[in-house]
Amino acid sequence: MRKIKLTIAYDGTSYHGFQEQRVWGIPTIQEVLEKTLIEISNTIIKVHCAGRTDAGVHARGQVVSFDCSQWPVPTENIVRALNGALPGDIVALKAEDVSPDFHARISAVGKTYLYVIFNDNVPSPFYARYSYFFPRYLDAGTMQKAAFYLEGTHDFRAFKSANSPLKNTTRTIYDCKVKRRHNKVYFCFRGNGFLYNMVRILTGTLLKVGIHKFYPEDIPDIINSKDRSLAGPTVPACGLFLEKVHYNV
Amino acid sequence: MRKIKLTIAYDGTSYHGFQEQRVWGIPTIQEVLEKTLIEISNTIIKVHCAGRTDAGVHARGQVVSFDCSQWPVPTENIVRALNGALPGDIVALKAEDVSPDFHARISAVGKTYLYVIFNDNVPSPFYARYSYFFPRYLDAGTMQKAAFYLEGTHDFRAFKSANSPLKNTTRTIYDCKVKRRHNKVYFCFRGNGFLYNMVRILTGTLLKVGIHKFYPEDIPDIINSKDRSLAGPTVPACGLFLEKVHYNV
Repeated sequence: MRKIKLTIAYDGTSYHGFQEQRVWGIPTIQEVLEKTLIEISNTIIKVHCAGRTDAGVHARGQVVSFDCSQWPVPTENIVRALNGALPGDIVALKAEDVSPDFHARISAVGKTYLYVIFNDNVPSPFYARYSYFFPRYLDAGTMQKAAFYLEGTHDFRAFKSANSPLKNTTRTIYDCKVKRRHNKVYFCFRGNGFLYNMVRILTGTLLKVGIHKFYPEDIPDIINSKDRSLAGPTVPACGLFLEKVHYNV
Repeated sequence: MRKIKLTIAYDGTSYHGFQEQRVWGIPTIQEVLEKTLIEISNTIIKVHCAGRTDAGVHARGQVVSFDCSQWPVPTENIVRALNGALPGDIVALKAEDVSPDFHARISAVGKTYLYVIFNDNVPSPFYARYSYFFPRYLDAGTMQKAAFYLEGTHDFRAFKSANSPLKNTTRTIYDCKVKRRHNKVYFCFRGNGFLYNMVRILTGTLLKVGIHKFYPEDIPDIINSKDRSLAGPTVPACGLFLEKVHYNV
């Protein structure tokens, strides 16, 4: 079997997530990608993604894997062939040959997510799709102090959507950084995995620290409570990017 | 009379220009702005813009003026009121009281336009709306040499759309800069006025220099020829930004 690992980027604004339940008239990234692969390969190709991003969430380094045995294309031509046929808001970045047992999701050992806040008095039309506009000034230094408490292995039950049925809610965050660059504030989370909506709830909780409604020292209490209602709000999808998927290779 | 000078920014992707001829189902920036002003002021407000940007062209510093005599709003509240009602791709940046004889277009003494090229092997979904993807490597140093020849007062007839009927085609370019930052190349034009499609044709001509199809020394000959067919192609609207409008105040 010939297996391909494909890294893609997309603007998720016009899509109903990578692989959501079907909503009439709104395509998913997976649908468009598979349709394009069928179109250019003349074979049926099913893809598996590393992270099923939600509706409106973007990716700068999503990874998909697929069986390419029936499509005799040289690997180095896949990116160009795809970008010639994909819409402008989905881009193939890199195609690599991998071992037949590689699976984009199962082989992944971690992921990095980025959340972008546009923190200024007036919004920007050019960042409206790619950030969450938050006009109240955010104290990035204090948020960074709070972020340190999120690092490590914890039961993150307080930071998952209440209606998500998952049993094992323990995850490890290796690294959590908060940085301001001019009027943008970036939240970067690297971990072994994330619960449903976890990055958006973590960011919403850090925002409450940034406007001094929570103290950094409140974070351990919120984690230990395992109570979703004590954490901050779920911030909008438009600010979230799947930045990178990590593999042991 | 109470006159307001309003600076706005917009993502032009979804609009049929600032004030183009009516196309069914595609709004203009002016329509949306005037509709919003009527909605929040309960008075009829007509705006005049500094530069009638084409379909798909963006603005980071468009200026409009309007008579605000019938709307007793404090000037410092106009920006917030507008941004609360405008769609996310049009943003009010600044509102100022000006003398009753101010007119956004007639009072303007110059404009700065910016053209953005995404110059990399693969495109980016996040720059697809805000740049022109050009995969062939561009030599910015040589383009800057060519740009020097564009500065000054010239008859720019060779750089205007053939179907534009304008008689006086002499304009002054005060400043023309070409800069590379990583995989983006920026073309910045500051002048007393620009003919129809002139910035896009100037950029298309500089691109031909950037891939060594034209030499910098060809520029004076193209200007002197007054022949549109000797200049480069008209590059797409998506890379163009009205950056700033200049006034003598």
